[in-house]
Amino acid sequence: MKKVDVCLSPDLMHLYEVQNSAVVVVDILRATSCMTTAIAHGIESITPFAKLEDCLAMKANGFYTAGERDGKKVEGFDLGNSPFEYMQPNLKGKKIAFTTTNGTQAIARSLGAKDIIIGSFLNITAVVNYLRASADDVLIVCAGWKGRVNLEDTLFAGALVNYLADDYTLACDAPLAAQRLYLQAKDNMVDFLKDSSHVRRLAKLNIHKDIEFCLTPDQYEVVPVLKEGVLINHVEVPLLKVAKP
Amino acid sequence: MKKVDVCLSPDLMHLYEVQNSAVVVVDILRATSCMTTAIAHGIESITPFAKLEDCLAMKANGFYTAGERDGKKVEGFDLGNSPFEYMQPNLKGKKIAFTTTNGTQAIARSLGAKDIIIGSFLNITAVVNYLRASADDVLIVCAGWKGRVNLEDTLFAGALVNYLADDYTLACDAPLAAQRLYLQAKDNMVDFLKDSSHVRRLAKLNIHKDIEFCLTPDQYEVVPVLKEGVLINHVEVPLLKVAKP
Repeated sequence: MKKVDVCLSPDLMHLYEVQNSAVVVVDILRATSCMTTAIAHGIESITPFAKLEDCLAMKANGFYTAGERDGKKVEGFDLGNSPFEYMQPNLKGKKIAFTTTNGTQAIARSLGAKDIIIGSFLNITAVVNYLRASADDVLIVCAGWKGRVNLEDTLFAGALVNYLADDYTLACDAPLAAQRLYLQAKDNMVDFLKDSSHVRRLAKLNIHKDIEFCLTPDQYEVVPVLKEGVLINHVEVPLLKVAKP
Repeated sequence: MKKVDVCLSPDLMHLYEVQNSAVVVVDILRATSCMTTAIAHGIESITPFAKLEDCLAMKANGFYTAGERDGKKVEGFDLGNSPFEYMQPNLKGKKIAFTTTNGTQAIARSLGAKDIIIGSFLNITAVVNYLRASADDVLIVCAGWKGRVNLEDTLFAGALVNYLADDYTLACDAPLAAQRLYLQAKDNMVDFLKDSSHVRRLAKLNIHKDIEFCLTPDQYEVVPVLKEGVLINHVEVPLLKVAKP
């Protein structure tokens, strides 16, 4: 039976072997919710950068620059970290260079995995279907906040574990704890999260609308996958009919 | 207002400043439950060692050697890691050198804190009273399992946070998540933990009796405190009446 595990903080990645696993990177508020939204709205690719200056330098290569530090849009960047910004029709077909406080760092820590995909509530069923179609074990990597565990990423991990629990073995206590928290929260996640540190941090920035949207399941059917350092939409490859010689 | 925080794994200790905080080290199954039991039964002191060979060497200095690796008693050691072993009357007044897979490692990672004490369900109210009497912020350090988060230490952290929540600010999402898990589990902790990795690991070693005991609150009123590298019982110092000159 395949295994599902949860890494509650990128600072615990040294404990996990990922070379044979599919990693699902999660930063619900708001990096991976933005990435999902962007890909769903026809943005061609997202190149994640851990460092701000590397991201900014991509402007010279015709990329839109996007992301945040400490929840706020970076000066000189074209786009911030609200999913609603990525719905603009003029972004269709464009390339984005993206950096955030936690999400893109979590991607950087996951390099070396067999497969890296982007998860959010917005595409959770698509992610479940993608993982079920693969033979790989799964590690859900929560971006957290500067190394600390956070509640919203843990809840998403728990939701994904809960979807997979029938067909996967839970590898340790982290998926179990995440699943139990999710089951407690699922009927009213906005309320469950209202005391969380990140929601309080973002509330000061007045983005309740973002928070509600980022907690809404199944808005999109895309699965952003990392291919040679670039996030693109996963496309089901139809079986080729090979002509007989 | 004082703050209470939770470090869910010793491998996350680099995120926390402890020089002005009281650290509560927790390894419910079973190191800190044993330490509490030992001190409550009149053992004079417990010297924790991270390394097995350092612990064993203390035999030459007249110490009883105690502890485990991977849940099992170490060959050549006088005592294992079951709290019931520490109730023997012949151990009264004796000194113990102690090493375990996770618990004593968590103590080693906590060095540098203003104050280090040992917490378990067995002495939880005594720990609460000790912390409330101090002006220090609190960090609860969960020993986990080889760096991984575990459920039983997280539940204890949640129980302690729940006791302190009226008088302390929750510093981040980790205490909040732990408290929510505890509130979900508190009416039947043995049942809540039955799928946890450590309980399954210990079940193979046939120690249900240990597990039930380690989850029982308020068996003892002692608070083991680390003084110059040695755990001794905290004794309330009565105010001295100073004679007028």
